[in-house]
Amino acid sequence: MNFCSHCGAPVRLAIPAGDDRLRYLCDRCGTIHYQNPRIVAGTLPLIDDRVLLCRRAISPRDGYWTLPAGFMENGETTEQAARRETREEAGAELTELSLYTLIDLPHIHQVYMIFIGRLAGDFSAGPESREVRLFEESAIPWESLAFPTIERTLRHFFDDRRRELPPGAERFSLHVGSFERWQAPARPD
Amino acid sequence: MNFCSHCGAPVRLAIPAGDDRLRYLCDRCGTIHYQNPRIVAGTLPLIDDRVLLCRRAISPRDGYWTLPAGFMENGETTEQAARRETREEAGAELTELSLYTLIDLPHIHQVYMIFIGRLAGDFSAGPESREVRLFEESAIPWESLAFPTIERTLRHFFDDRRRELPPGAERFSLHVGSFERWQAPARPD
Repeated sequence: MNFCSHCGAPVRLAIPAGDDRLRYLCDRCGTIHYQNPRIVAGTLPLIDDRVLLCRRAISPRDGYWTLPAGFMENGETTEQAARRETREEAGAELTELSLYTLIDLPHIHQVYMIFIGRLAGDFSAGPESREVRLFEESAIPWESLAFPTIERTLRHFFDDRRRELPPGAERFSLHVGSFERWQAPARPD
Repeated sequence: MNFCSHCGAPVRLAIPAGDDRLRYLCDRCGTIHYQNPRIVAGTLPLIDDRVLLCRRAISPRDGYWTLPAGFMENGETTEQAARRETREEAGAELTELSLYTLIDLPHIHQVYMIFIGRLAGDFSAGPESREVRLFEESAIPWESLAFPTIERTLRHFFDDRRRELPPGAERFSLHVGSFERWQAPARPD
């Protein structure tokens, strides 16, 4: 940020009175420009024991596999954002969505929110995907996943599928976690 | 937004090629200025059957009661943001935090994330609070709550406290919801 988006004057980095963080300040009109993390909303689409993945057609990580996900827009809910991204990237609709992973990425100012849901009907690659396919656990391309958030979400899913549950417990309840910095996807055990 | 924060030229609202939403575009340097929802992170601090509330000393809703909460900052996790706000507004530390309500407010581009946790030690009003107090259910100032998100979170809590649970079920598991527009807090039943 170099200029004030309100009045066009140059901004400077300083800690405003009563604050304890550096902000971009405009000395001409007095605006303080706050910057905040963004939400990446997406889904883990299921059909029986298979999950849907998209192979990215855009950078970053062009050619790598991911879950349908992208930046939440103003004017929508997190679930609407997740459904929209799934429609745009995978041509897919889901039923019974529930929040499954919430992963903080403080070093890049992002919060991932992935909803789990059942695939309803057909699917097809959108303009940001090279291809869209269903994978059983044994076929997941662990070494070609786009982001560590995707790997972690898939690992939670396959662990939860296998887990013995006490009666009354939810099989796919929320997992909260974070990555403090970029971590390359690990090899499978 | 009137000016490009990168180069200082005037911006215009238009739909970029390959997009389907209005964005602020800079014709001089080509920057597209995306705007995204912000996260409000906070806590529901408990001690036995009482909850901690803060009476606001700042606008909006100066003088009304709220849970400690505020905008998440770059470089922190959602839980760190919730703990920081609790420290700043209520001088309080919590143990055993878990995500309790996630409430979308698409009309004002916000997502509330309130964590539930046990109060550890003392508390005191910070500069943004007139006072901080513990309330039993019968004493909650339902008609003087600052925001509908706060009322909903408190109602979930007292409902969950009373609820009969199947063995193995979590008492305070996540509630996801939204408000599509401002709703004044309802009177208690």
